[in-house]
Amino acid sequence: MFTIDHLGIAVKSLAAAKSIYEKLGLSVSAEETVEGEQVRCVMVAVGETRLELLEPTSENSVIAKFIAKRGEGLHHVSLRVPDLAGAVERLKRDGVRLVSDEIKLGAGGHRYVFVHPSSTGGVLLELVEGQR
Amino acid sequence: MFTIDHLGIAVKSLAAAKSIYEKLGLSVSAEETVEGEQVRCVMVAVGETRLELLEPTSENSVIAKFIAKRGEGLHHVSLRVPDLAGAVERLKRDGVRLVSDEIKLGAGGHRYVFVHPSSTGGVLLELVEGQR
Repeated sequence: MFTIDHLGIAVKSLAAAKSIYEKLGLSVSAEETVEGEQVRCVMVAVGETRLELLEPTSENSVIAKFIAKRGEGLHHVSLRVPDLAGAVERLKRDGVRLVSDEIKLGAGGHRYVFVHPSSTGGVLLELVEGQR
Repeated sequence: MFTIDHLGIAVKSLAAAKSIYEKLGLSVSAEETVEGEQVRCVMVAVGETRLELLEPTSENSVIAKFIAKRGEGLHHVSLRVPDLAGAVERLKRDGVRLVSDEIKLGAGGHRYVFVHPSSTGGVLLELVEGQR
């Protein structure tokens, strides 16, 4: 089944951004640093999905560059798909623009690919494989 | 329980934007026009939540103005909360900035309020009440 795995949201201040969700009574994870991506993040659990709040730890991080260009806000939508390789093959055949041609291996061994915003109505769409 | 009711995505062309989701095998609703908001939209079902693709039907629509200013992309995140009146009261007391002070009544009788992006890390956050 398709689900939204998480929404990645680029923020200047994790403390400020997570506060609204805590006030609403949602469960916010402990802060975690992802060195490779130069971000600190928290996950906010919302039903079957999550909000991932991302604060840059360096001016060179992708998230810092995004904020400099577009301001704070949604960075990507992560869609969990049942058959990632099959989906990527179909999209390529149909001329959909992917950020990278190859499926990549992320933290914890999850497989993913990004679809370019020009093919999705302006949303950077991450496809990840399988069940959570 | 909290869930994400839908993600509102502002697009220039409904036909182009929905195509990627159809190619992935997701279920896309028939197109519908909302005269009051000057938009045409489709809903894409994704697990317990939905993507709402919004195409402006007039230059004066909020969505047209958003696209002119920011480009295509995520317009709002709609969060379903168990007790809307209680949530609004708590947020106001804590100084969170709402787009309107009053809870509004939308199509189909649903009650909603928008939290200003300055209080959420750049995301226009709609709070809607109750079960779907």
